[in-house]
Amino acid sequence: MSRRLLTVLLGSAALLATAASAATPPPPKPVVAKADMAAHQKMLTLDTHLDTPEHFARPGWSMMDDHEVHLDGSQVDLPRMKAGGLDGGFFVIYTGQGDLTAEGYRYARDFALKRAVDIREMVAAHPDAFELAFTPEDAVRINKAGKAFAFQSIENSWPMGEDLTLMQTFYQAGVRMAGPVHFRNNQFADSSTDPKGKIWNGYSPLGLRWLAEANRLGILIDVSHASDEVVDQSVALSKVPVIASHSGAKAIFDHPRNLDDARIRKIAESGGAICINSVYLVASAAPSPERKAALDALPRPPRDEATQADVVAWMAKRAAVDKQFPMPRANFETYMASMLHTLKIAGPKGVCVGADWDGGGGVEGLEDVADLPKITARLKAEGYSDADIEAIWSGNVLRLIGQAQAYARSVAAAK
Amino acid sequence: MSRRLLTVLLGSAALLATAASAATPPPPKPVVAKADMAAHQKMLTLDTHLDTPEHFARPGWSMMDDHEVHLDGSQVDLPRMKAGGLDGGFFVIYTGQGDLTAEGYRYARDFALKRAVDIREMVAAHPDAFELAFTPEDAVRINKAGKAFAFQSIENSWPMGEDLTLMQTFYQAGVRMAGPVHFRNNQFADSSTDPKGKIWNGYSPLGLRWLAEANRLGILIDVSHASDEVVDQSVALSKVPVIASHSGAKAIFDHPRNLDDARIRKIAESGGAICINSVYLVASAAPSPERKAALDALPRPPRDEATQADVVAWMAKRAAVDKQFPMPRANFETYMASMLHTLKIAGPKGVCVGADWDGGGGVEGLEDVADLPKITARLKAEGYSDADIEAIWSGNVLRLIGQAQAYARSVAAAK
Repeated sequence: MSRRLLTVLLGSAALLATAASAATPPPPKPVVAKADMAAHQKMLTLDTHLDTPEHFARPGWSMMDDHEVHLDGSQVDLPRMKAGGLDGGFFVIYTGQGDLTAEGYRYARDFALKRAVDIREMVAAHPDAFELAFTPEDAVRINKAGKAFAFQSIENSWPMGEDLTLMQTFYQAGVRMAGPVHFRNNQFADSSTDPKGKIWNGYSPLGLRWLAEANRLGILIDVSHASDEVVDQSVALSKVPVIASHSGAKAIFDHPRNLDDARIRKIAESGGAICINSVYLVASAAPSPERKAALDALPRPPRDEATQADVVAWMAKRAAVDKQFPMPRANFETYMASMLHTLKIAGPKGVCVGADWDGGGGVEGLEDVADLPKITARLKAEGYSDADIEAIWSGNVLRLIGQAQAYARSVAAAK
Repeated sequence: MSRRLLTVLLGSAALLATAASAATPPPPKPVVAKADMAAHQKMLTLDTHLDTPEHFARPGWSMMDDHEVHLDGSQVDLPRMKAGGLDGGFFVIYTGQGDLTAEGYRYARDFALKRAVDIREMVAAHPDAFELAFTPEDAVRINKAGKAFAFQSIENSWPMGEDLTLMQTFYQAGVRMAGPVHFRNNQFADSSTDPKGKIWNGYSPLGLRWLAEANRLGILIDVSHASDEVVDQSVALSKVPVIASHSGAKAIFDHPRNLDDARIRKIAESGGAICINSVYLVASAAPSPERKAALDALPRPPRDEATQADVVAWMAKRAAVDKQFPMPRANFETYMASMLHTLKIAGPKGVCVGADWDGGGGVEGLEDVADLPKITARLKAEGYSDADIEAIWSGNVLRLIGQAQAYARSVAAAK
């Protein structure tokens, strides 16, 4: 794939995905009872999949400004984190899948290294508001200091090419969670969504080394986007429990990106957790010819490096199409159905939150992170205790991060 | 070499090197006539070799604080840049030479990538004071905006291992100048100071590809630390003029790190420039048995990640040794002798300033960057015009950076 084409694809993914929400008017701010809001604010909260780093280098966009999702499609910034009581999360180094060639690997490596720098620069630029987290203890300490904690994760390990020593490079840069694969099969593993079907029957031989290296370093293995066989092999082979950083329940909506009950149970019983995604909750009907024509007539979506003004201008055009030719959209109830079903199977120690913000997430009524207190309110209404809810919000993920790191320490100590 | 040993070596190099200056009391601030100071302040100035990034991640040390060289050995920070009228420079990604093995290459790659991140984090943390520069035009624009400009350079390309695609990684991170080699021979080239003597007779076959890749990308080739044959081959083979970012005149002091008149002439006649170093200006006599014993009795020097307090405490001990058993030290006159001699051979278009601050530089009377106006004053006293002096301070280097980039553009356009 040409570099230019890759850039176009990579630059536009999040915008295309979040554009659906642009059709709707500014959402009413969450209507959450005072007591529920107070309970939510007391909890340590995190989201395991924030694709916000795509915006970090954008001229005119700042993590410190309060944005509106219906204007620029963005769903996470510090003011909205505060409004939604979101204390931190995993900021994602995401690389859209390209060619499995030397050229592709090199491109991906450099792209991911640059994205990692974007994250560190954002945090460095706002030392009073953000701090990098590398351990569960860091998250707690940073939160107590009144700052947002920023873990780093990798979505798609394609950038490691065939050189697994790069995993240590990313670990050193701060990455503490990684998934092997994204929308398409790669050198490490089969994807759950590659139109060509599987090629490895799970992990590739190199992918098995990827898994062992993640264990050795103390990087939590993320099975979201991976094929079912990769999920099964991860649970079976990983020395520590695994996570699905942004996945949902197949019982609610049958999509390859969602997990069936047996696999939810398997992950949870092995000590892992499923962080509930807000994507893949309703069928995306084939667009009408009129909608398709209108979409085709849109200018090319702005790239990552486009200015905020360019993004807002493009989003307005896109929103007009969505308004004229609307598509089915999931809502808060569908999202909660996926979470509540998963809770029934996995229990409160096996569920967490990863709604794919800025990466395609967001449903009606849960439009950006400012809406997150609704989840706490709803879980309380369902009878979950505050302790359970805090486990869902952060305890389970921090436990898993801690377990991955404890295993790495034990390996290092045994040497 | 073990990782731990590498860290010790890397962490201590600059401290050991600058420790000599710690023996002297705080230097008197530069005594420069008002008119000379005014002329200096008007000029755009830069230093081509600032090893200050070693301090960037040090707890308790900040680029925004005013430090004293006799207390912590550091020689560059924003207050002293302002006092010395230093508008910017090349912040160095320096990696001390280690083993030419897969493990060594991996270690070096990750070390250098981390150091590159340190530089970007420092700049990101102080957006009103610093800005990254990638082109000559950037330097001028940033200076006009009242900020210091930060170019990035590589000292020792060992971190590229045998994977030259990493040069593009570093280019993408912002690197615009690179030298192939440091104190010891490596996979790319012979060093001027390897005790084992030469192994490649200049560049290695891989080193010739290194050179071509630097040309292709528009990275200015830096021949400081390289053997004489590498200097000659660089001038002969590079498509654009080269630089010596921190070297001196062998005629003033005969040391392998300095350039003889013929090579100074050759570099200058081919359009390149020599940036005058403040190291290798006097013979370092063998230490007396008493001095050696006292040095051996010192605790291990603090590493990069040591706190500022630890560094200050260690420096005090080291300074006591230097005071009790002093070593010969160069002074401002020796430094100017090297510059004036090089000016005679190379002319004002072939000379620039790279005093190896925070990397071993500093002489009596030129202790840190606050002393830099003395150089302007002295050059004026020698009869050089303001235009010549500004060329020495920045014009020549920006011209070379521009030429390297213009060549890269021409290659890209021809494709």
